[in-house]
Amino acid sequence: MTAEIVAIGTELLLGQIVDTNSAELGRALAPLGIAHMHRQTVGDNLERLIEALKVALGRADIVFTIGGLGPTEDDLTRQGIAAALDDVLVHDDRLERDLRELWKKRNIPWADSQLRQAQRPTCAEPIANPNGTAPGLVCRKGGKVLVAMPGPSGEFVPMLEGPVRAILAGLGEGTVIYSRELKVTGMGETIVEKRLGELVHSQNPTVAPYAKPGEVHLRITAKASSLAEAEDLIRPFEAEVRELLGDAVFGVNGDTLESVVVGMLVRRGETLAVAESCTGGELGGRITNVPGASEAFLGGVIAYSNAVKAAHLGVRQATLDKDGAVSEACAAQMAQGVRERFGATYGISVTGIAGPGGGTPGKPVGFVFLGIATPEGVVVERRQYIGVRATVRRRSTQDALTMLRAAIAKRG
Amino acid sequence: MTAEIVAIGTELLLGQIVDTNSAELGRALAPLGIAHMHRQTVGDNLERLIEALKVALGRADIVFTIGGLGPTEDDLTRQGIAAALDDVLVHDDRLERDLRELWKKRNIPWADSQLRQAQRPTCAEPIANPNGTAPGLVCRKGGKVLVAMPGPSGEFVPMLEGPVRAILAGLGEGTVIYSRELKVTGMGETIVEKRLGELVHSQNPTVAPYAKPGEVHLRITAKASSLAEAEDLIRPFEAEVRELLGDAVFGVNGDTLESVVVGMLVRRGETLAVAESCTGGELGGRITNVPGASEAFLGGVIAYSNAVKAAHLGVRQATLDKDGAVSEACAAQMAQGVRERFGATYGISVTGIAGPGGGTPGKPVGFVFLGIATPEGVVVERRQYIGVRATVRRRSTQDALTMLRAAIAKRG
Repeated sequence: MTAEIVAIGTELLLGQIVDTNSAELGRALAPLGIAHMHRQTVGDNLERLIEALKVALGRADIVFTIGGLGPTEDDLTRQGIAAALDDVLVHDDRLERDLRELWKKRNIPWADSQLRQAQRPTCAEPIANPNGTAPGLVCRKGGKVLVAMPGPSGEFVPMLEGPVRAILAGLGEGTVIYSRELKVTGMGETIVEKRLGELVHSQNPTVAPYAKPGEVHLRITAKASSLAEAEDLIRPFEAEVRELLGDAVFGVNGDTLESVVVGMLVRRGETLAVAESCTGGELGGRITNVPGASEAFLGGVIAYSNAVKAAHLGVRQATLDKDGAVSEACAAQMAQGVRERFGATYGISVTGIAGPGGGTPGKPVGFVFLGIATPEGVVVERRQYIGVRATVRRRSTQDALTMLRAAIAKRG
Repeated sequence: MTAEIVAIGTELLLGQIVDTNSAELGRALAPLGIAHMHRQTVGDNLERLIEALKVALGRADIVFTIGGLGPTEDDLTRQGIAAALDDVLVHDDRLERDLRELWKKRNIPWADSQLRQAQRPTCAEPIANPNGTAPGLVCRKGGKVLVAMPGPSGEFVPMLEGPVRAILAGLGEGTVIYSRELKVTGMGETIVEKRLGELVHSQNPTVAPYAKPGEVHLRITAKASSLAEAEDLIRPFEAEVRELLGDAVFGVNGDTLESVVVGMLVRRGETLAVAESCTGGELGGRITNVPGASEAFLGGVIAYSNAVKAAHLGVRQATLDKDGAVSEACAAQMAQGVRERFGATYGISVTGIAGPGGGTPGKPVGFVFLGIATPEGVVVERRQYIGVRATVRRRSTQDALTMLRAAIAKRG
């Protein structure tokens, strides 16, 4: 069974958007044994869209379109699909009703141009889109399956993970390609590869490292005739990888460093508060991205100015005057201050120079102190990051979470 | 003059790599007046690569390949180009000499498999690649130009910015395609399009809306014989668009809502503090992503638990007991509390149900209160967002910043 992706949108060609959706879909197809040999990208142009769809329908069993399902005039996917499948568009009353209800719920004025989104080819069934307005479509005609999904990632990803996966699961064939991803932090890609030694040359399973900001993701992939057989191949291999990398492996697949840390805290019935200077709330933002974080995360102080550090975290004026806000002493007092004032088991602090301005020869851009206060005391580490503002901030939150993970583990 | 990109690599199809290079190249082509209507992505398979190149050469004047130039057996681009152009590969002594010198310089043992990278079609000239081993190629045959570039971004981007730009500059037809992007918030894509009316059908300049989370970006594109002429076409058109959309237009090109708001505050010498519940620091994170935010942003309180709302923001216990933390009264007290306690000109508050858990019939997931405290008082607005946790949080920060922008503007 073969598939082909047709990604639609002039903004993709112009490079205003990087096509992460097609990559996401590619990652979903392989484990289902669906081969995928071509991808086409076209702009918002009906003629070229129809041509691309016809080419794809001519050589693949399943065709996916991504994008162009919105309500505006340059959203042409519905028309293109109807034409490529020799079908016509019809108005779907149920889709109109759903749209009108959504507008009512959102309390925004209805515009009849929305009715475009209630149209579908006669051979299509709609796919519900609880995260947006445009429904997806699955069309079955002449032995081909065509699945249309919306372009915004917040709509595309949940539709892929839910209903589209279910549709695909019913289509697959004999061979299964199954992957499992180990997530590693605190160790660069080169060191990871060196530690893995001969394992990197293994044929089945294979292991491939991908460098991410502050992390390395190791994709272990097995090819087998069933999911169970693939898992049997992966299990001992994964154990070997974990043996070689130790604590640096913090999670698998959908885990994030923050979800792992929140999980540890919730299981232990412990709590956390943060004191952020140069990260400005980003650390709290990462932690509270985890659903259910409220069970462990109490909150924190964004102490951007020195006055806030003194008044709301109890950093001593003498420390600010003598050592400055970017200092080991300040980081220690911030972590301890937020831990005590918020009554949390752990307090994290981050203070540093994110750049581009503010650096000095002694404290250059990327110079950051990270503090962890526990019931046993406080630990501060110094870092010198290389990179732009966003990189310095991201690395700071990454290393702060890694330090907290180690501190929790150490307490047993 | 038209172009087409052929991106090569099984890892692109499998989604192990997101294709940022094609987007980068797309962004480079438009300003040069080179139209670009298709992109194809194929795996490391010679037959399909040749087919894709033939299709591209059949419909475009310039074809770009990205990837597949390395020394390994699945690097097939050189062979594919030779076949698609009815040419043959020859060994280039100068390329071999350059490669051997590079190996010597790097002090690593030479392997004859590297000699693949010294091959080129007879019609090709090599493009130097100081950041890697594989040279690029520019082939001219039968009125077509084919440019082959390496896949690793660290090699691709400098080659594009340097030698390839120079090659392209010599090809243009004296047409310039120039774009300017207006950023709109607080108004959906449909309403924006309705307001623009007949303007959306304009041919030169054109205007195209792109929906982003909480924003609409309007790309105005003019085609002219010089940059100055293109700007002359865009200027009155932009003025018309601004007239129709009013305050909803908050910026252009690289502006973000947070950079615009921080800019307003800095110019006025005013300050800001935030009180975040369901956004958990994300609002502060957004604001402090702006370089120089420290000139206006004092900090804030991440008040995730009720105890923190009472102790650190002064929310009254009676309010928490009677109205709950997700209430108009709580949002008002949070905004005023942080404004007073931090001594800021403005205080922003966000409290709501981000989901997936925590919703009730009266306060469902996506139900959020946003507060702005100013020297004149406090305003609270209620929102009902639709979408996943990340969407609810993002929309909350977006609308909070929009409210602040309006509040500042209103004070004159």
